[in-house]
Amino acid sequence: MPDLNVLAICGSLRRGSYNRIVMDALPELAPAGMVIAASPSIGALPLYNADIQNEHGFPAEVTALAEAVRAAQGVVIVTPEYNYSVPGVLKNALDWVSRVPNQPFAGKPVALQSASGGILGGARAQYHMRQIMVFLDALVLNRPEVFVAAVRSKVDEASGKLTDEPTRDIIRQQLAGFATFIGRVGTA
Amino acid sequence: MPDLNVLAICGSLRRGSYNRIVMDALPELAPAGMVIAASPSIGALPLYNADIQNEHGFPAEVTALAEAVRAAQGVVIVTPEYNYSVPGVLKNALDWVSRVPNQPFAGKPVALQSASGGILGGARAQYHMRQIMVFLDALVLNRPEVFVAAVRSKVDEASGKLTDEPTRDIIRQQLAGFATFIGRVGTA
Amino acid sequence: MPDLNVLAICGSLRRGSYNRIVMDALPELAPAGMVIAASPSIGALPLYNADIQNEHGFPAEVTALAEAVRAAQGVVIVTPEYNYSVPGVLKNALDWVSRVPNQPFAGKPVALQSASGGILGGARAQYHMRQIMVFLDALVLNRPEVFVAAVRSKVDEASGKLTDEPTRDIIRQQLAGFATFIGRVGTA
Amino acid sequence: MPDLNVLAICGSLRRGSYNRIVMDALPELAPAGMVIAASPSIGALPLYNADIQNEHGFPAEVTALAEAVRAAQGVVIVTPEYNYSVPGVLKNALDWVSRVPNQPFAGKPVALQSASGGILGGARAQYHMRQIMVFLDALVLNRPEVFVAAVRSKVDEASGKLTDEPTRDIIRQQLAGFATFIGRVGTA
Repeated sequence: MPDLNVLAICGSLRRGSYNRIVMDALPELAPAGMVIAASPSIGALPLYNADIQNEHGFPAEVTALAEAVRAAQGVVIVTPEYNYSVPGVLKNALDWVSRVPNQPFAGKPVALQSASGGILGGARAQYHMRQIMVFLDALVLNRPEVFVAAVRSKVDEASGKLTDEPTRDIIRQQLAGFATFIGRVGTA
Repeated sequence: MPDLNVLAICGSLRRGSYNRIVMDALPELAPAGMVIAASPSIGALPLYNADIQNEHGFPAEVTALAEAVRAAQGVVIVTPEYNYSVPGVLKNALDWVSRVPNQPFAGKPVALQSASGGILGGARAQYHMRQIMVFLDALVLNRPEVFVAAVRSKVDEASGKLTDEPTRDIIRQQLAGFATFIGRVGTA
Repeated sequence: MPDLNVLAICGSLRRGSYNRIVMDALPELAPAGMVIAASPSIGALPLYNADIQNEHGFPAEVTALAEAVRAAQGVVIVTPEYNYSVPGVLKNALDWVSRVPNQPFAGKPVALQSASGGILGGARAQYHMRQIMVFLDALVLNRPEVFVAAVRSKVDEASGKLTDEPTRDIIRQQLAGFATFIGRVGTA
Repeated sequence: MPDLNVLAICGSLRRGSYNRIVMDALPELAPAGMVIAASPSIGALPLYNADIQNEHGFPAEVTALAEAVRAAQGVVIVTPEYNYSVPGVLKNALDWVSRVPNQPFAGKPVALQSASGGILGGARAQYHMRQIMVFLDALVLNRPEVFVAAVRSKVDEASGKLTDEPTRDIIRQQLAGFATFIGRVGTA
């Protein structure tokens, strides 16, 4: 049986981003047979403007991201929460990708993770993301939800490693559940 | 009595944006004594990245927008809905402004308007915006809500005018209510 | 192939409820092979109180509703919006059913419909319902969404019939899509 | 200066409810000059049904609750989260009160608190409550937010006391902020 091919998108551009540390841990936490690769950067996209699209077509970075989503059998989004919602930078990437013909999130299994310094672990961003995904017609995994609260205490910043074992375990559980979910709902 | 000084922010960058047409109509729909000015563009901001902030400080465009918010006695946000939520470009501007010391939305009266081609008139974006404004500690006017549905039929695109009289009237009512609200809750 | 067995739950208790009129139209709008039956009433349930559950067990009406959900291959919820959210009476029914062991909404395909006298057609209630369904681990159909705005003009109250043909058509499309969705994600 | 008269409403009916324990601690945590009284029970209300209202008028329990809201200068709602949203029993009370002529929440300052056994402390219920309060035209305090997570470890169930000092302190801060907020936005 061929591997499950999963794309991971990080909602933060900061070098040393806590969410990127979480995302970088995904390959080693994935179940056997799931291969997780990082998406092209969302940091080089212009701010969405329909005039750009109409006059110049889609920027190459948008097309690359859209094709990466399309090619994946599932997408994991790992994102901080900014101001009780989805970061503008991540939403901007979704706004671009959503306009690409044959919209690539349609019918795509999606799993959500978030990390924050606070006590809610980014939960508010995830519920907004779930509503966004309704429009994109993605199929979002219900559970387990991954909210990494107080993330500073759960990583080793020097090595860029996610060290908290309970967090690693809930992520393992989510990715295993995601594999099952893709098997159940995926088009593949 | 000095004028009420209100800032208007548009969530779309498109030339000919329907939401900009709505926003451009605000001055003529404002009650006596309310002066409404358009904000500096949100289209020249970089995508938010804490590394930029840490290494170079706030971009001049961010500082200008933050100061415009700070100087206003109220803010009207006029925005499209993208993918059932706030446009990334607008959220990106808020993400930047929210980091400016002495965060300028704190305690600020805010009114929301949205226009869309669909039947809900951007309502979903407004409810996400309301949650964002909780974090920013802004004071958001409850009603009347302004959802401009089927906006194409309500403007004259050639002249860039908002022509639909019922829409103009509900906006008049909202702005009059906003003046009262600022009088009640504003710090002035 | 045996019929698809779908349960319909109405969020309003009012005789002559507009949402009940919509719900009563579902059987004639369902695709071939889908049988839709109304749920037991949610109007005879007590207000949820864990003491009742702990001291007397589940009321018979709760058990009946839970078993009806469990037995169905899909559930359609047709509900008004009260105060920008789900009616308390409907939420109360879900609060009871959610406590029944082997929680019956888990993995269950669900479709949402709402009707209101206003212009948004109950959309706000549906997005709250979608968040509730995340906890219940149900699988909610993304689209088409059915928001019946200005419902008074779309029914014949004397005969209790849903008469508006565009509304009937979008419901037909949703139910056909729901059959496909159940086929894709259902547990059989 | 006369006392600030604040009404507290509990979203749970359970004897020994954790949220009731939190609510019972409010009087001793209130700032000087704020008097907090518990609302009439929401447990004796019938499930909302417009036919009851139309045929028999408002039940006495509804009228009593509405008048208690109307008479208060502010309302504190202390509620569990059920199924990622507001408990049906509490929403049912709001659905009734919202229909009372001269709707009593209009313009009323409101503060929200929630307690849960989980890690989010009821946050999801509060954001739904904030949207409900938009319709009711209440003025909801932004911050500090009070989310009591892992509540079992923060109370003494035998004595029914809220014992966790950090929780008591954040509630003190919220109530002091609420007094200021009422002074700023209240109609007196």
